[in-house]
Amino acid sequence: MFDIVFLGTGAMKPTPKRFTSSLMLRHKKETIMFDVGEGTQIRVAQSGFSPMKVGKIFITHFHGDHFYGLPGIIFTMSNSERKTPLTIYGPTGAKKFIQQILTLGYGQVPFEVNVEELSNGDQIKGDGYTITAFDVDHGPPSLGYLFKEDDDFSIDTDKMKKYGLTSHPKFKLLKKGETIEIDGKTLKPKDWLIPIKGDSMVYTGDTRPCENTVNMAKGATILIHESTHVSGDIEEDRGHSSAKEAAEVAKKAGVGTLILIHISSRYLDTTPLLDEAKKVFPNVYLPNDLTKVMVKKGELTVQ
Amino acid sequence: MFDIVFLGTGAMKPTPKRFTSSLMLRHKKETIMFDVGEGTQIRVAQSGFSPMKVGKIFITHFHGDHFYGLPGIIFTMSNSERKTPLTIYGPTGAKKFIQQILTLGYGQVPFEVNVEELSNGDQIKGDGYTITAFDVDHGPPSLGYLFKEDDDFSIDTDKMKKYGLTSHPKFKLLKKGETIEIDGKTLKPKDWLIPIKGDSMVYTGDTRPCENTVNMAKGATILIHESTHVSGDIEEDRGHSSAKEAAEVAKKAGVGTLILIHISSRYLDTTPLLDEAKKVFPNVYLPNDLTKVMVKKGELTVQ
Repeated sequence: MFDIVFLGTGAMKPTPKRFTSSLMLRHKKETIMFDVGEGTQIRVAQSGFSPMKVGKIFITHFHGDHFYGLPGIIFTMSNSERKTPLTIYGPTGAKKFIQQILTLGYGQVPFEVNVEELSNGDQIKGDGYTITAFDVDHGPPSLGYLFKEDDDFSIDTDKMKKYGLTSHPKFKLLKKGETIEIDGKTLKPKDWLIPIKGDSMVYTGDTRPCENTVNMAKGATILIHESTHVSGDIEEDRGHSSAKEAAEVAKKAGVGTLILIHISSRYLDTTPLLDEAKKVFPNVYLPNDLTKVMVKKGELTVQ
Repeated sequence: MFDIVFLGTGAMKPTPKRFTSSLMLRHKKETIMFDVGEGTQIRVAQSGFSPMKVGKIFITHFHGDHFYGLPGIIFTMSNSERKTPLTIYGPTGAKKFIQQILTLGYGQVPFEVNVEELSNGDQIKGDGYTITAFDVDHGPPSLGYLFKEDDDFSIDTDKMKKYGLTSHPKFKLLKKGETIEIDGKTLKPKDWLIPIKGDSMVYTGDTRPCENTVNMAKGATILIHESTHVSGDIEEDRGHSSAKEAAEVAKKAGVGTLILIHISSRYLDTTPLLDEAKKVFPNVYLPNDLTKVMVKKGELTVQ
């Protein structure tokens, strides 16, 4: 179970309603940010959350609309006397650009900022999840990210009841894969546990439709795919996807829900984008800035 | 006559309603920006204007809340294929920091960006105005700016009527200071012209109250003074002014209207700031983001 707040759903140029790219994912006690377009800290404030809780930031690529909010959010964390380290992940170039940001203007950064450059297939393991970076097809070094909750198990309580068993401290051991003994009965994990598939999210950043996204998004609960334009409106050599192309990727990967973001400033009415995507893949959603969604047991709920 | 749109009226940390420092001044055909906090280009879009018309940007100092919107606005100008040169003025350090911004991330800037470092007393002359930089008392190299329209003359039409004179092409020469002859009558400029005092605006940026501001603001139509806090709420060593201190500067300088900006995020209700300023200097105004004011013939009108 995790939730996502869409902080910026616009493309290269912000509009009065859509800021540039950023989303915030909350899982257990962690808050993770993906991309930090200009004004991200303002959207965080408007969402009612705090940037102080963000521990990890994943940047897809170093075009301005995906990271120009970093100086401001670090400045605010510094003015709020943050002490907790912050780790920023990104493709090749991350170390150089973050260093430029950390020396941009006067002011001290009173906390540790770690930068890790990632390549295709690199994995970051966290408490109950793994984030995998994968190459996408955009132009400059560009990564998409797969966030996947660890698979888990729950006790089959219905079956337990049938056998007259109720809650017991030893059940924890059973969940850890150990065989336990209660009242002379031997209970093996395989007989009493139900597997729970972890939910997953893929965020592409900017990209042309590509096989790597299809492979990484196989069976994902949600695929957040860029959808800059309606088919034919801009040239393929700009490195972006149409809503139709995003839907084709979703269909090939068999995801649960497709979410369209990175909407060009030319579409104040997003109906044409939704319409062309739905013809290919019906389960599609296009959020506004500050829309919050919950992902739980394979289902997406808009909150 | 000029107008001003307040794009960001907040202090170090943006709030949902107040972005960080920026204001836009429009005079004749020019659009001039003073400070460019994060999200400035979003506020410009929300104001209904275009960043493409901005030809000169004056930065007061290089704390993030006064210039972190520069990368984004330059990125958008670039994506909009701007060709017109842009000149950025600022205190010592401007060349270094703007260079960092211009190389932050991938992407070409297809227009000329000139940077000029200014010192106390430096003047930039434009079409019908002069901008003077002056040192303020903040910490890092910090400038305030005086924008002053050129003084002008108008024909004394009432007097003309008395003498049976009406409009004549030669009046233009009179306005230029030349003695003219109409129907055998000799008309000297000093007898037929009324001086019009140019309107003026002083913008302090961040500062403690200081004599330099008082001197530069002598008789100014409007003084836009930072007013971060209510007296006693934060320490003097932070380099900022209280509303009361801003009002004392306005009183000493004898300005027309005092405008309070750079409002700390702690004041969602700004009444305490206005109240303490009014006790010292009654003609005070505290704008919101996107408030537009017109300055004409010594008067300020909120639009």
